Amino acid sequence: MCEANAYLIEGEDKTLVMESVDSVEPEDDGLKLMNIFGEQRFIKAKIHSLALVDHYIYLSPLGDL
Amino acid sequence: MCEANAYLIEGEDKTLVMESVDSVEPEDDGLKLMNIFGEQRFIKAKIHSLALVDHYIYLSPLGDL
Repeated sequence: MCEANAYLIEGEDKTLVMESVDSVEPEDDGLKLMNIFGEQRFIKAKIHSLALVDHYIYLSPLGDL
Repeated sequence: MCEANAYLIEGEDKTLVMESVDSVEPEDDGLKLMNIFGEQRFIKAKIHSLALVDHYIYLSPLGDL
């Protein structure tokens, strides 16, 4: 399986927001994350960068979280 | 390996821009894609959405390509 772990980057800090993410979809003011277990989470963030072979998705906050 | 194929979405069309993408990094006015073979490509686009288990990265154009 090729899911990845999503981290929120804030300055020097990286916070794990969801493990085993399958899909990331844009919504009006953020992103909808869904993992391979079907769990969903909305987060006010945008995609910053990807490192897929290492299973990383990096997100940047959009305004207040 | 958990690389994915990057497609540019323009209306109804999806155009493959790079196969076997490992990393996607933001730059000033677009994205730098790098595949598992070390090939790089810059594209004036932003990340639209991800479907990692299916190995898809969808990009949206930024202005003129």
